[in-house]
Amino acid sequence: MKHVEAARRLKTVEGHIAGIRRMLEEDAYCIDVIRQIQAVQGALNKTSKIILEEHLHSCVITAVQGDDPAERERVLQEIMDVYGASRKV
Amino acid sequence: MKHVEAARRLKTVEGHIAGIRRMLEEDAYCIDVIRQIQAVQGALNKTSKIILEEHLHSCVITAVQGDDPAERERVLQEIMDVYGASRKV
Amino acid sequence: MKHVEAARRLKTVEGHIAGIRRMLEEDAYCIDVIRQIQAVQGALNKTSKIILEEHLHSCVITAVQGDDPAERERVLQEIMDVYGASRKV
Amino acid sequence: MKHVEAARRLKTVEGHIAGIRRMLEEDAYCIDVIRQIQAVQGALNKTSKIILEEHLHSCVITAVQGDDPAERERVLQEIMDVYGASRKV
Repeated sequence: MKHVEAARRLKTVEGHIAGIRRMLEEDAYCIDVIRQIQAVQGALNKTSKIILEEHLHSCVITAVQGDDPAERERVLQEIMDVYGASRKV
Repeated sequence: MKHVEAARRLKTVEGHIAGIRRMLEEDAYCIDVIRQIQAVQGALNKTSKIILEEHLHSCVITAVQGDDPAERERVLQEIMDVYGASRKV
Repeated sequence: MKHVEAARRLKTVEGHIAGIRRMLEEDAYCIDVIRQIQAVQGALNKTSKIILEEHLHSCVITAVQGDDPAERERVLQEIMDVYGASRKV
Repeated sequence: MKHVEAARRLKTVEGHIAGIRRMLEEDAYCIDVIRQIQAVQGALNKTSKIILEEHLHSCVITAVQGDDPAERERVLQEIMDVYGASRKV
C-alpha cells in the first residue's frame, strides 16, 4: 500500500521542517537553511513519485483498459498536467 | 527580519503537509495529492528565495566589501552551489 | 502528427540558441543571457510535454491494453523515470 | 573568459538538438527523445551556472563595492530573480 508509505514519508518531512524552523529561530547561517529546504524538496519529489507509481498501477490501468474514451483521456491529461507542473513549482 | 517571516511560512507548510497526510489516510485521489505536494514545493521555493534575499543583503555584502578574498570567494561559490542545486532537488 | 510539431519547435530552439551565442560574442549582459537560456528551457519543456502526450496516446495505450504484463510494467516504469528526471535536469 | 566557454557549450547544444530533430524525423521512440531533451536541459543549466559565476565575479563585485546603493540593490535583485525563475522554466 503506497499511500501508507507516502504518509510515513510526509511525517518525516514535517519533522525535518520543524527542525529547519528551529534553525531559523537560532539564527542559523542562511545557506545552511536553504540547503535543508532543498533536502526537504528532494524528499517531497520522492513522495510524489511514489504516489504517481501507485496511480499508474491502479487508476490509469483501469481507465485505459476501460470502455469510456472520455475517462481515458481525462486520466492521460492529468498525467501530462502533473508532468508539466512538476517543473514549475 | 526575514528569518521570522521564513519561520512563519515553514509553520504554514507543516500544517499543509499534515493536511496532505490526512488526505492519504482518507484515501484521496492520487493526482489531488500530487498537486497538493506541488503546492507545498512552491511555498518552499518562495521561502528559499526570502532567505536568499536576506543572505545577499547581509553576509554577501559584508564579504564582498571585506578585505578577505578567500571569504569573498567562499560566499560567491555558495550562491552558485545553491543556484545549481535548486534544479536538482 | 506530434513528432512533426516537436521537430518544428526544436528547429526554433536551435535558432534561439544561435542567437544567444551571438549575444555572448557581442559581450551581452550576463543576466540577459541567463534569461534567454531560461526561455529556451521553457520551450524545451513544452516540447517534452508534446512528445509525452503523443507517447501516452500511442505506446502507453497499446501496452496497457495489451496482453504482456512485463511490457505494460516497462512502459509505466519509463513514465515514472522521465517524471523523476524532469526535476533533475 | 567564461563567455567563450559558454558559447562553445551552446554550439555543442545546437548540434545535440539537431540530432534530436533527426531522431524525430526517423520516428524514434518517444521516451528516448524525451531523455535526450532532458540531457540538453542539463547542459543548458551547466551553461547558465558558468555565466552566473562570471557575473558574480565581475558585475556583482563591482556593484556591491561601488558607491551607488540603487545599483547594488538592482544587481542583488537580479540574482534573486534568476534564482526564482530557474525553478519555473
